[in-house]
Amino acid sequence: MNSDFSALDAFLDDAGVDGFLIDAAGDDSDQVYLSGFDAPDPFHTLYDGEVHLLVSSLEYGRAKKESDAATVDRHADYEMRSLVEDHGRLEGGRRVLASFLDERNVGSVAVPARFPLATADGLREQGIDVRTPESPPIGRGGANVIETIRATKTDEEIEHVATAQEANEAAMEAAEDLVRAATVEGDELHYEGEPLTSERVKEEIEVTLLRHGCALDETIVACGANAADPHDRGSGPLTAGEPIIVDIFPRDKSTKYHADMTRTFCKGDPSDEIREWYDLTAAAKEAALALVEPGVTGADVHDAVCDVYEDAGEPTLRSDETTETGFIHNTGHGVGLDVHEQPLVGPGGGELEPGHVITIEPGLYDPAVGGVRIEDIVVVTEDGYRNFTSYPEALVVE
Amino acid sequence: MNSDFSALDAFLDDAGVDGFLIDAAGDDSDQVYLSGFDAPDPFHTLYDGEVHLLVSSLEYGRAKKESDAATVDRHADYEMRSLVEDHGRLEGGRRVLASFLDERNVGSVAVPARFPLATADGLREQGIDVRTPESPPIGRGGANVIETIRATKTDEEIEHVATAQEANEAAMEAAEDLVRAATVEGDELHYEGEPLTSERVKEEIEVTLLRHGCALDETIVACGANAADPHDRGSGPLTAGEPIIVDIFPRDKSTKYHADMTRTFCKGDPSDEIREWYDLTAAAKEAALALVEPGVTGADVHDAVCDVYEDAGEPTLRSDETTETGFIHNTGHGVGLDVHEQPLVGPGGGELEPGHVITIEPGLYDPAVGGVRIEDIVVVTEDGYRNFTSYPEALVVE
Repeated sequence: MNSDFSALDAFLDDAGVDGFLIDAAGDDSDQVYLSGFDAPDPFHTLYDGEVHLLVSSLEYGRAKKESDAATVDRHADYEMRSLVEDHGRLEGGRRVLASFLDERNVGSVAVPARFPLATADGLREQGIDVRTPESPPIGRGGANVIETIRATKTDEEIEHVATAQEANEAAMEAAEDLVRAATVEGDELHYEGEPLTSERVKEEIEVTLLRHGCALDETIVACGANAADPHDRGSGPLTAGEPIIVDIFPRDKSTKYHADMTRTFCKGDPSDEIREWYDLTAAAKEAALALVEPGVTGADVHDAVCDVYEDAGEPTLRSDETTETGFIHNTGHGVGLDVHEQPLVGPGGGELEPGHVITIEPGLYDPAVGGVRIEDIVVVTEDGYRNFTSYPEALVVE
Repeated sequence: MNSDFSALDAFLDDAGVDGFLIDAAGDDSDQVYLSGFDAPDPFHTLYDGEVHLLVSSLEYGRAKKESDAATVDRHADYEMRSLVEDHGRLEGGRRVLASFLDERNVGSVAVPARFPLATADGLREQGIDVRTPESPPIGRGGANVIETIRATKTDEEIEHVATAQEANEAAMEAAEDLVRAATVEGDELHYEGEPLTSERVKEEIEVTLLRHGCALDETIVACGANAADPHDRGSGPLTAGEPIIVDIFPRDKSTKYHADMTRTFCKGDPSDEIREWYDLTAAAKEAALALVEPGVTGADVHDAVCDVYEDAGEPTLRSDETTETGFIHNTGHGVGLDVHEQPLVGPGGGELEPGHVITIEPGLYDPAVGGVRIEDIVVVTEDGYRNFTSYPEALVVE
């Protein structure tokens, strides 16, 4: 990956500890990032200026081959069997880990906030100082130092996102094609003699993504009142004349990097209000993008969106923190190994830097009207941004 | 879910604590099981004889509607905003959690081994006693009490597994059909003018599962030397005359329960050795199944498989713990919200009980020959077992 870990070195200096330790499996993006390795069961990664792995015998060969770690050890290198015989499986395992740290003269470690308690307590019993110091976040508290480093992508990571977005555009096209092919019966969309449902469109999206090497756990195809709740995944028949929000956030199965894009479609004639919302949201997205460059903050970009909406008389959380209609979420978020990661493009969001991959996704919502959202994904460059999104913007599907 | 939590009551009595606390999101099966709720971000579930949820305002409405919890509180009920203003986001959040516990007179909690360290340290600072006691495992150390309870399925959970297995059989059929439709060019399988690869077969499996409401992260289609490593997912062109292991373990997207099944196929004429391995493996599976009933241990079932293989002169880990060929894994594992869960069907595996859902999956492996594995999934009943698997067993695909 050739990532720059100098921020981690500085963090460890500040915290006054010898190393950073992760105990997690390959479903933890910090683990995948720091170790350069993926495995179904938890393993240990130590950073002390270099990356060191401690894995089971089962994963040893693959870890040596696939990771870029300076060293790869297995439990058996630390007398696992006799320690387990003497102390039981859990206590034996902790003693192996303590020996692995001791071998590198690591007596104190910083760990992520969600580091497993039993491992921490076990290490503390072995005399290791285990702490969860907070790291300087990009914009808001809670991010650990690895998440902060992950926010800045290498050229290789940027291409991974671009590739995932290509698959995403094919999936969006498949969804729009299905809406286009539908007929209107009463006020319902029909396809092949049956009501066209959110579920059916999602299936088409997922199959298309699979054919392009991507996976996803969830996708949003939400119409009418469903679409008025930004967290609703959508279900049931799609309705003519109402906006359908399609939000797809796939993960490339080979690289594990995500893309993210939203478009809003309407089959049949939308109301004037929906047309206005759509144009306003497109304008809000453009206003936000016009600001994106290094040094501008995520908060500034978010304010640009709020300005557009508030100038048009729409409520925002900035103007009324209790509003349940209008613009009721952040402008965007980082995208990478996680679909939501640093940096924040919202209130408190810090300075954008070259290599930050972010979404810009303004939207308006009202249960009485529905919802409209348009989302692009871009990477911040030295002098602006590169937009990974080339999918057209058009509300009405004809 | 109407699960029986009496084992949890007994565990809390033994541990001498007031409650059991989970801090996790919906990707944690223990959290989903205990809370009856699923959310993308971490939330808190307390069990003190009843289930109590503490969630964000964003999830509050859905949590009240979807979970069976006795009470659902939100952070705002504990003055989140002013605590965060006074103490910062992390410390404020921990004080909210401590107040939530205090409200129920819970001063001491047992937590899972992988409970987040920062939460535990934060609660300890607030005077809460936080411990990770081990629970009596089914067969081997490390399982927590919720995993142990999860091993015994309700009728509803059993039907969820049966439904997932129906989708699994459709996917297996799609895979076998593709192998059947292939032609043999030289020693390679070809389909539609191109070499038929593991990747192409996996795509067919995944698309079929999606059409049946299931998802999966991974599947195994491994041929030749790939198949000799039970952990290899398989890649590249499939070869005629060599066994192809197809192991599919989907998750039903609506219920979150898994199924699991393996079949081994050969296009073209297999060697005599592979034929022998196949018949031996089928016999080993039958020998194991013949034992399955309440009171028999997972260790007994595993021994029955080893007996069949060893009687035929094949190496097993039981006869030689360093062997890298022959029968080199356990006989099976529990299946439910996780694809691998309690109970263990292998060395040290404890007594089977009605409601345990387990796999029986003997296999033989040798890099010089390839691999053969046959896997069924069954539920232990009062007087034996019910096999969810109806897929035929036939090595040669014609």
